[in-house]
Amino acid sequence: MDASEVTNIRLSDDGESVVILDQTALPNVTKYIHLSSAKALFEAIYTLRVRGAPAIGIFAAYALYILARQIKAESFEAFNAELLKLSAYLDSSRPTAVNLGAQLRRMEKIVNLNSRLSLPQVLEAMRDEADKIYDEDVQMCRAISEYGLTLIKNGFGIITQCNAGPLATSKYGTALGPILMGHERGMELFAYICETRPLLQGSRLTAYELEKAGVDCTLICDNMASLVMSEGKIDAVFAGCDRIAKNGDVANKIGTSGLAILARHYGIPFYIFGPSTTVDMDCATGADIEIELREPGEIKELFFEQPMAPASVGCYNPSFDVTENSLITAIVTEKGIYDNFNEQWA
Amino acid sequence: MDASEVTNIRLSDDGESVVILDQTALPNVTKYIHLSSAKALFEAIYTLRVRGAPAIGIFAAYALYILARQIKAESFEAFNAELLKLSAYLDSSRPTAVNLGAQLRRMEKIVNLNSRLSLPQVLEAMRDEADKIYDEDVQMCRAISEYGLTLIKNGFGIITQCNAGPLATSKYGTALGPILMGHERGMELFAYICETRPLLQGSRLTAYELEKAGVDCTLICDNMASLVMSEGKIDAVFAGCDRIAKNGDVANKIGTSGLAILARHYGIPFYIFGPSTTVDMDCATGADIEIELREPGEIKELFFEQPMAPASVGCYNPSFDVTENSLITAIVTEKGIYDNFNEQWA
Repeated sequence: MDASEVTNIRLSDDGESVVILDQTALPNVTKYIHLSSAKALFEAIYTLRVRGAPAIGIFAAYALYILARQIKAESFEAFNAELLKLSAYLDSSRPTAVNLGAQLRRMEKIVNLNSRLSLPQVLEAMRDEADKIYDEDVQMCRAISEYGLTLIKNGFGIITQCNAGPLATSKYGTALGPILMGHERGMELFAYICETRPLLQGSRLTAYELEKAGVDCTLICDNMASLVMSEGKIDAVFAGCDRIAKNGDVANKIGTSGLAILARHYGIPFYIFGPSTTVDMDCATGADIEIELREPGEIKELFFEQPMAPASVGCYNPSFDVTENSLITAIVTEKGIYDNFNEQWA
Repeated sequence: MDASEVTNIRLSDDGESVVILDQTALPNVTKYIHLSSAKALFEAIYTLRVRGAPAIGIFAAYALYILARQIKAESFEAFNAELLKLSAYLDSSRPTAVNLGAQLRRMEKIVNLNSRLSLPQVLEAMRDEADKIYDEDVQMCRAISEYGLTLIKNGFGIITQCNAGPLATSKYGTALGPILMGHERGMELFAYICETRPLLQGSRLTAYELEKAGVDCTLICDNMASLVMSEGKIDAVFAGCDRIAKNGDVANKIGTSGLAILARHYGIPFYIFGPSTTVDMDCATGADIEIELREPGEIKELFFEQPMAPASVGCYNPSFDVTENSLITAIVTEKGIYDNFNEQWA
């Protein structure tokens, strides 16, 4: 199986649930799960069974459609009121990535645009819209990968963290897209994967995807990035994004800003990859982006055979950080490569 | 129990083994183990049951004494030949820290200085020398802590990684010394502890020591350092050292150079703490320091309930990195604070 062909989000054949590849079970178990209750759909986002900004957006669209099917309402108004409640509930599962809220708003809008139709027709419009979101994501990933390919050469060493591959999107990935596409086209590329604590998306997901695709890859701990850069192994840093402020500051997985600072120190270009819809024009700068704080248990206990820190010690567990625009060589979207970020493109 | 009073390396009461607090069992189990065979003593260093550059040096001195007691030889020459073999064996357990080899050389020298004495007297001289190494380390830690205290103020946030506390030394610690001593004297200090992958010395050992001592501390993953620095929480970076080159480049736990680069970016002072004996005048620059490479299993499997990366993915697992002198605000030893590092002090 080609890693770019993993279909990690789809509707079930009976159309009554969303089926996802449970990313929390990777890399040891490849398990598809069916989700149909509001609680289960919310939990899948919160616990990162589905993750990656674009993937969360696609998932949320299908999730809202599935929940809409379950609404028992006498009127459009009653239906819509219930839908907005469910949408707000899903939206509250994670705060940082723009895609979750943005795709839910898009689904709400399609419902409103079809308010004069019958409920079955409204549901059909919702399903079509979710499919459209999915298809657009596939096209977006392909375009980003093509643009990204123009930034690298044969023999390049590329460092990445977290997961911005097929699992984080519909199919191809954003930051991993150029690597997978370049490999398919016969380029020799060397990927260095930061394991990405605490949830290990690098070792569990990115290593899984790149290994499957046959890319030459090396796993490191996050604190080894400076050393591999100093050893001349890295020609570029590729990272995804969860929200881009109007001034070009980028929120992405915790650790991204550190990689950007190291890259600047070592004279290595630092690229951000993501759909143009990641820009949030309501955020003036990165300081306006809400950073999700998660449970201490993810650092102290999760995945481990036994606790790895004293039970009483305090933890700070931010899931994202903000990279200031001045540290970013270019932002790559499906519309092009923006090395002088400005408002025009969004 | 005061954390600075943990006695983690000592001779057993019968004088036939070295007793250590097994650091691999912390923080869940406080277990003292008796070691007397060459293989067990070697293994204790290699598997990091005892670790931290000064502690390894002390341990090696006692270990060589214990092994010397077991030598059956007819002459001093035969005794010495066997001793040198055992010393070389212990020395091969880890390559980067200067202390291991340096203290073994010191023990070999004391044997040679006493070559005209009887074997029991030679053994007594070895034991005295090992005790002296221990006592000097206690004094060294105290002096370093006093000097370090002059660099901080009440209310300071200090970030550290790995473990340079009592467990890494005889009693007080190097980089943790000023924090523990400042706390004892009533200062309010805020310690941020990088967990330090892959072996988690930060979460397992430093958090254990600072918690025990009652210091206000917060555990973070290594990739969160940039964010906490950007949030204005950090006033200084404190790190230990394993080997210092003649030009002031410093080898220390992997991740140290990254912290130094981040600190420079955010305008935060970066201090190295260690005994003056850490300087290796035979190393012209950091490029001459051998970096220990360890097993991939430490990244992929160790501590985890199940493997956290695909079995076949390659890993790079360097245990140390080198921080160039230009990134270091000052090096603090028992002799003083050297903000313009030069050869004179060593």
